[in-house]
Amino acid sequence: MTTTTGGHAAVPTDLYLRVQHFYAHQMQHLDSGRFEEYAATFTEDGEFQHSPGARPARTRPGIVRELVAFHERFENDPVQRRHWFNHIALELREDGTVSSTAYALVVNVRPGGKPDITRSCVVHDILVDGPEGVRLRSRRVTHDEG
Amino acid sequence: MTTTTGGHAAVPTDLYLRVQHFYAHQMQHLDSGRFEEYAATFTEDGEFQHSPGARPARTRPGIVRELVAFHERFENDPVQRRHWFNHIALELREDGTVSSTAYALVVNVRPGGKPDITRSCVVHDILVDGPEGVRLRSRRVTHDEG
Amino acid sequence: MTTTTGGHAAVPTDLYLRVQHFYAHQMQHLDSGRFEEYAATFTEDGEFQHSPGARPARTRPGIVRELVAFHERFENDPVQRRHWFNHIALELREDGTVSSTAYALVVNVRPGGKPDITRSCVVHDILVDGPEGVRLRSRRVTHDEG
Repeated sequence: MTTTTGGHAAVPTDLYLRVQHFYAHQMQHLDSGRFEEYAATFTEDGEFQHSPGARPARTRPGIVRELVAFHERFENDPVQRRHWFNHIALELREDGTVSSTAYALVVNVRPGGKPDITRSCVVHDILVDGPEGVRLRSRRVTHDEG
Repeated sequence: MTTTTGGHAAVPTDLYLRVQHFYAHQMQHLDSGRFEEYAATFTEDGEFQHSPGARPARTRPGIVRELVAFHERFENDPVQRRHWFNHIALELREDGTVSSTAYALVVNVRPGGKPDITRSCVVHDILVDGPEGVRLRSRRVTHDEG
Repeated sequence: MTTTTGGHAAVPTDLYLRVQHFYAHQMQHLDSGRFEEYAATFTEDGEFQHSPGARPARTRPGIVRELVAFHERFENDPVQRRHWFNHIALELREDGTVSSTAYALVVNVRPGGKPDITRSCVVHDILVDGPEGVRLRSRRVTHDEG
């Protein structure tokens, strides 16, 4: 079976579910500081731009370096960050890749504190569905606060 | 396969997934101001009551008019609104339609600002699964703040 | 088909979807005060620890008693609580059970008020998939604020 919405090309339901599960594991890797595992969810030549205006990190080692550098800024800040996703919308592209557009909220929690929702974003992904499963070819994140 | 919970009638897993994907596209249409596309997710005679006490909008053109009127109030307000959904619970009804009950949060973001969660709602939908896919026969939204 | 991520054992996509739907109904039961229905989502010998340090409630009647006692504290507080879930990540275990790790946010709303996000948690579940469908063998909730 496939999912169809309006004029969109049909997306296999199985693929939709696998993308959801892929994101669940991927973002738990990121929020737990497992940067190697996060980078491994990208293709070898994957590209990751976590903020508008930032230079995209490229390749798995490049993505790990970017994440390590980003998190060094919070070295003395015991923040637990959680990235929430919602409304994952897929579209098949003519080249066989899959575009995925999803809402994201960034939740920060510090010891003894309350959850603080610091950002509302839209995640723009290009996914490939290969023999080893779903992998991310590129991720670009836009911020709603402009 | 089907999903079953307690005494609920079995819902085909494929339908559950297609409803999720339907909502993802539908709410991205709404939050991007694509009101024609949002209205097209309803049946021709669809009914949409976005707030308790509001008179329901009827038919696709009526839903577009209601949304245009609602958004005119925010004409000079550069707010980006995001509707998040969670815990979509389906039940098959005897007439072949599907009731869907889901949690919703309304997130508002203004330029330079932080996400502001303004409402917690419950969405009460009646869906039909026809030859053109899932369509919404009626949507009624209740607000948790009473 | 199955979902695979990195080195994880393959999880049938159908099971992933049924777990999602199971949670949707389960948490709507909890937030609507249908404690018997919530307890019935556990196995007969199920175990529920809703907060770190709390003594786990055991068996369905024990879980109902725990929930009744917890909610008596809010008897004169007209709060509507909503538990949101995100990034449900499953892994098959060697004994045939399924571990599920999910993000959770607790949203409180009082009459006339705005949604207040009071907690960010991680839910650690052990699920069994038996003839009557998915059931929870144990749930342990950790809090991000430490």
